[in-house]
Amino acid sequence: MRSQDDNVESLKPLFCPRTIAIVGASREETGIGHRILESLQNGGFTGSVIPVNLHATEIAGLRTFPSLRDIPCPVDLAVIAVPAGLVLSIIDDCAAKQVPTAILITAGFAETGGIGTSLEEQLRERVHRYGIRLIGPNCFGLMNLDPAIRLNATYTPIIPPPGRVAIASESGGLGLAVVMAAQRLNLGISSFVSVGNHVDVTVNDLLEYWEQDTNTDVILLYLETIVDSHRFRCIGERVGRNKPIVVLKAGRTPAGQSAAGSHTAALATNDAAVDALFTQCGVIRAKTLEEFLSLATGLSNQPRLLGRRIGILTNSGGPGVLCADSCAAEGLTVPELSQTRQSAFASFLPPMAALRNPVDVIGFATEEQHARAVETMLRSDELDALIIVHVSVRVNDNDPVATGIIRGIRAARQTGNNKPIYLCWMAEGDLERTFVVDGETIPTYRNPEVPARIISRALAYDAWRKQPVGKTAHYADVDLVAAKAICAKALADRGSGWLTTHETHELLAAMKIPLISSGIATTAEEAVQLAQKIGYPVAMKLASHQIVHKTEMGGVRLNLVDDHAVREAFNMIRTRLAQAGKLEVMEGVLVQPMLSGGVEVMVGMTSDSLFGPVIAFGLGGIHVEVLGDVQFRVAPLTDRDAAEMIPGIKSYRLLTGYRGQPAVDLKAIEDVLLRISHLAESISEISEIDLNPVFALPLGQGCQIVDARIRVVKRSL
Amino acid sequence: MRSQDDNVESLKPLFCPRTIAIVGASREETGIGHRILESLQNGGFTGSVIPVNLHATEIAGLRTFPSLRDIPCPVDLAVIAVPAGLVLSIIDDCAAKQVPTAILITAGFAETGGIGTSLEEQLRERVHRYGIRLIGPNCFGLMNLDPAIRLNATYTPIIPPPGRVAIASESGGLGLAVVMAAQRLNLGISSFVSVGNHVDVTVNDLLEYWEQDTNTDVILLYLETIVDSHRFRCIGERVGRNKPIVVLKAGRTPAGQSAAGSHTAALATNDAAVDALFTQCGVIRAKTLEEFLSLATGLSNQPRLLGRRIGILTNSGGPGVLCADSCAAEGLTVPELSQTRQSAFASFLPPMAALRNPVDVIGFATEEQHARAVETMLRSDELDALIIVHVSVRVNDNDPVATGIIRGIRAARQTGNNKPIYLCWMAEGDLERTFVVDGETIPTYRNPEVPARIISRALAYDAWRKQPVGKTAHYADVDLVAAKAICAKALADRGSGWLTTHETHELLAAMKIPLISSGIATTAEEAVQLAQKIGYPVAMKLASHQIVHKTEMGGVRLNLVDDHAVREAFNMIRTRLAQAGKLEVMEGVLVQPMLSGGVEVMVGMTSDSLFGPVIAFGLGGIHVEVLGDVQFRVAPLTDRDAAEMIPGIKSYRLLTGYRGQPAVDLKAIEDVLLRISHLAESISEISEIDLNPVFALPLGQGCQIVDARIRVVKRSL
Repeated sequence: MRSQDDNVESLKPLFCPRTIAIVGASREETGIGHRILESLQNGGFTGSVIPVNLHATEIAGLRTFPSLRDIPCPVDLAVIAVPAGLVLSIIDDCAAKQVPTAILITAGFAETGGIGTSLEEQLRERVHRYGIRLIGPNCFGLMNLDPAIRLNATYTPIIPPPGRVAIASESGGLGLAVVMAAQRLNLGISSFVSVGNHVDVTVNDLLEYWEQDTNTDVILLYLETIVDSHRFRCIGERVGRNKPIVVLKAGRTPAGQSAAGSHTAALATNDAAVDALFTQCGVIRAKTLEEFLSLATGLSNQPRLLGRRIGILTNSGGPGVLCADSCAAEGLTVPELSQTRQSAFASFLPPMAALRNPVDVIGFATEEQHARAVETMLRSDELDALIIVHVSVRVNDNDPVATGIIRGIRAARQTGNNKPIYLCWMAEGDLERTFVVDGETIPTYRNPEVPARIISRALAYDAWRKQPVGKTAHYADVDLVAAKAICAKALADRGSGWLTTHETHELLAAMKIPLISSGIATTAEEAVQLAQKIGYPVAMKLASHQIVHKTEMGGVRLNLVDDHAVREAFNMIRTRLAQAGKLEVMEGVLVQPMLSGGVEVMVGMTSDSLFGPVIAFGLGGIHVEVLGDVQFRVAPLTDRDAAEMIPGIKSYRLLTGYRGQPAVDLKAIEDVLLRISHLAESISEISEIDLNPVFALPLGQGCQIVDARIRVVKRSL
Repeated sequence: MRSQDDNVESLKPLFCPRTIAIVGASREETGIGHRILESLQNGGFTGSVIPVNLHATEIAGLRTFPSLRDIPCPVDLAVIAVPAGLVLSIIDDCAAKQVPTAILITAGFAETGGIGTSLEEQLRERVHRYGIRLIGPNCFGLMNLDPAIRLNATYTPIIPPPGRVAIASESGGLGLAVVMAAQRLNLGISSFVSVGNHVDVTVNDLLEYWEQDTNTDVILLYLETIVDSHRFRCIGERVGRNKPIVVLKAGRTPAGQSAAGSHTAALATNDAAVDALFTQCGVIRAKTLEEFLSLATGLSNQPRLLGRRIGILTNSGGPGVLCADSCAAEGLTVPELSQTRQSAFASFLPPMAALRNPVDVIGFATEEQHARAVETMLRSDELDALIIVHVSVRVNDNDPVATGIIRGIRAARQTGNNKPIYLCWMAEGDLERTFVVDGETIPTYRNPEVPARIISRALAYDAWRKQPVGKTAHYADVDLVAAKAICAKALADRGSGWLTTHETHELLAAMKIPLISSGIATTAEEAVQLAQKIGYPVAMKLASHQIVHKTEMGGVRLNLVDDHAVREAFNMIRTRLAQAGKLEVMEGVLVQPMLSGGVEVMVGMTSDSLFGPVIAFGLGGIHVEVLGDVQFRVAPLTDRDAAEMIPGIKSYRLLTGYRGQPAVDLKAIEDVLLRISHLAESISEISEIDLNPVFALPLGQGCQIVDARIRVVKRSL
């Protein structure tokens, strides 16, 4: 693994090459190599370009060599567009010529399965052996719009305006669609990378590069999988502190995962874990392609918000109402303006204008009225941001309105005002208009509901950024050696499966996780003795690592008040099991004190094939199963993760003192979450943990785990 | 109230006038009257237009009269654009001239408050007295695009293509924005009405008109309020059976309601009741303006779906994955194609193509390949609908792809294939392209997630339509006279407020609503006698119509097992109340049997200022309060409404036999819902009912109401 600095250094020739060789540049204009050559030339690349073609001496006016090895000068970057079968020998040529970086456009690797997969393996081995930094294969290329470089090594001729947004995409087509939309939206791009099958350079490498790239403020990622989720999390959390990362993650559903599989062999994964990971590292997740683009324009161009009070300026009631609705739905406020402020508007707006907020200047307001209204809204200390909604009735009306808006913004900005401004420009026939005021682009949308959404996401990101960095806890009081030994012995004795009740108790004790005091009885008389020791009333439960749904088997008896009830309960549990022919799986009967008070919660862990241990928290019972009211986080949990999980459930109010009940001991639950995370991280053989129910007791009294199940699996080395 | 036929007949001159007078036609080109005149002329109106202007003899080449009264021929429609102060006298002129219909553009009525409100009242009285059908005031006019009429009485010069979608809008600006977008989207419009302040003609009148209008297949409404919700429901349910009604309802939130108030004085209302009403009458509710337009194009142009199996044809992996994700998220399937089908594709697609579904023809597929792929997808019996997703890399590539798609559709359609087709055309520089195949418009969107959403809404609408019409129940066993007498006496004795425990029990008994057997004790000894009669264990509850939260007052004691416990409970309830100084509100203590088994649910009713009684159903306890898991319906409930409410809650699984529990008696709960609806409809003085908890018992055992509260209010006449 390269250090961060080495990684960034090694990627520089990809973004800032002086000399590029196009291997597979053809004379035919429809050839991919030729198209890329054309893109480089038309894009005004500031370095030199050398075509490589076995059969030509000149292509597109450039001197052409038969092989990389024949080029007399150093080459920084090879762009390769040859048939898949020739790729490995070209990589050998790169090594011989000491070309440090390459972009491999060619498809026909793992995305096609079969022979392509083994070809990709050979490719990976070879570029790693040579130390070549390679983008692709199966990619659409790279752009660096820095005016000092002007590198368009893709096959689109459309070049977006240079700017401060970097984009990486796992789908070339989607990436190009975004780049091309950027031109229409006047969204300034710093660089764009189509990562293809990411045999060498991954999104993680690029995040580190863009972290240090002074041209980049915002990072957009289209992902179908997460490569090395631990590294993604570390880098993402660090980068996200300074530069927002917006991700459109496809393959959310099994159908999407299957579709992605047919595309780039992405691994199927659990979308709840993806959401958890993104939450933990502050990634802003776009739900749709449109939201992805809207977030890009919204986040890259405007100052940060300082509050939630939104002013809406419109020339038509209906769209103003839709905008106000969307603000309220996103947790923003649309405060009624003070009488003073309303009077200020009344002094220059038409008599029919609405003044309370939304301010409706009505359809026929002049340029001057628009200018004054915009400036007055921006300079009001009653508002934190401005949304302007314009509906055009006639195309001719748009120019004066647009001029008025720009004049108003300029006037406010010249007094040092830096409130965020968003535009909804519903002007048919003039929809592509962009608004730039003295170099500042005003994010412009078509639909009145969009700005509120963007503002609310920006505020949530800012709130994440302001929190202190989470810390993983270190526990001096746990006995990991003992815990590991229990798992190892269970695996050695019985192979993969659930731990016995006894093993489970021992393991949790080693982790200092507060399992309820109890004992296992193998006869009715033992049960009575245990119950007397514990004190009545007691609960009794079948102890068996092979029977998961004990209630359905009649294996749970609650509120037993005396010896007689305990004896009867033991015998009934045993009889039911015998009737079912399952007596041999009975390890005994667990006798526990009946808890009263507190709230039943659950803590769980499952092992995700891509992300490793994922920790779950929810209320007990139906909340998890029927209502799906669960919070997930990827291990290792930080103190901040644990503290955020609990209030994250919808039924959180039940834990904070609902209807006169005492508030529960949240710190104690957090501690269980952190210890379970620590356990799962430390012992990879543990594949599943289910603590359910956990009694969350009143503040100061901690919590008590009433039932626990732990599963171990043999891991292949 | 007019009959439906009279209403429709009376509106005809608005849509199909032979002669229109423009009252307030000015010579100035910026005047509203002048603009409308221009629109009528440029739109090619097939009737005649007569300007009315006190000071001119000719405007825009047309003979002009000083007053309506001076026009020598009959006038079918007066379009009025004069200052607000002159409007009433113009209405008098209309009456004198026997003009049957008018469109009043002028603003300055109730939307401005104050004097405008009283002016609107006078206007309403006058048009009703004269029997003139009037659209407005404060509106943008009307369009009828029937080629035999070609009426554009609005002030936009942009005319959308004629077609089969009718639009009514409470906001003129939003309505015009939709009409203008329709041109870009090639969305065919039959007619458009800006209803303004709907002093006379309402959306309900228009629904009846469009129900009979042979030019209209789909109805779009932008609403800020619901005028006469009972009539809306009746008409909506009837019309919706044949023609889908799509509504964008603004004012969802208090901020939006406030914004709408400043605009057209819409009444604030409860958005949950709006959702309930729309669910009941099959209205398709759009969440955003974009969805409104997408639904319009999607529903007006394509055949009905017969199933959920979606084929996706794409030329780029990423957008195909996003499309597949959205299908799965919307409950559709993207089935893997059979080997036979895949082989068929393999025979003509490039070797890199993905064949399973999504079918990815890859970026450089030819026109011919697109044509064959589209035809093959459409003709596959493994799929019910087709979504085509195209990303262009170069603008030049678009023409052959578009031609190929159209060829493929035509070839399939010519064999009688009528599966729905949706397009996602992500072609920067060519985004406004529309697809029409032999007169059939293919709905075309920009974002890959949109088609799945539209398909899923269309399927839900179809499912609603297929259900039998709901019936309201008639109960021969209820004693409404007694019920009314109880409410009247309580109001006479104490005024508005909660009924006493005794009154509540009597009232529910009169309605044959199964309140649990119980009695009220005023002394500890009475309580003991009642408990002995009922049988132990019992529950005891403070009886007081003035204390709502009894648990917090220590007023609920459960599971009392003997005389001693009952005596103690009575005394403790009394003591707590005495300590709080509230002994005088104690009506006694309710003694009830303890129920076990069954699931606690709640049935409620609140009276909405706009909609009247709204019935609520949810699980008891935290489900309603903390999780908001409640279903609402507007009264009167039909059997279908009641049957749909119960499965509508998220926690429905708890009622159908969860974890070995018996399924509950759903019919008994439905019966309670229907009787409560009947009660609320019959006695308008009842403003609130809360049956909570109701014990839903196992199938065949009915349900038992454990606690009930009913509030009555004095209604002003």
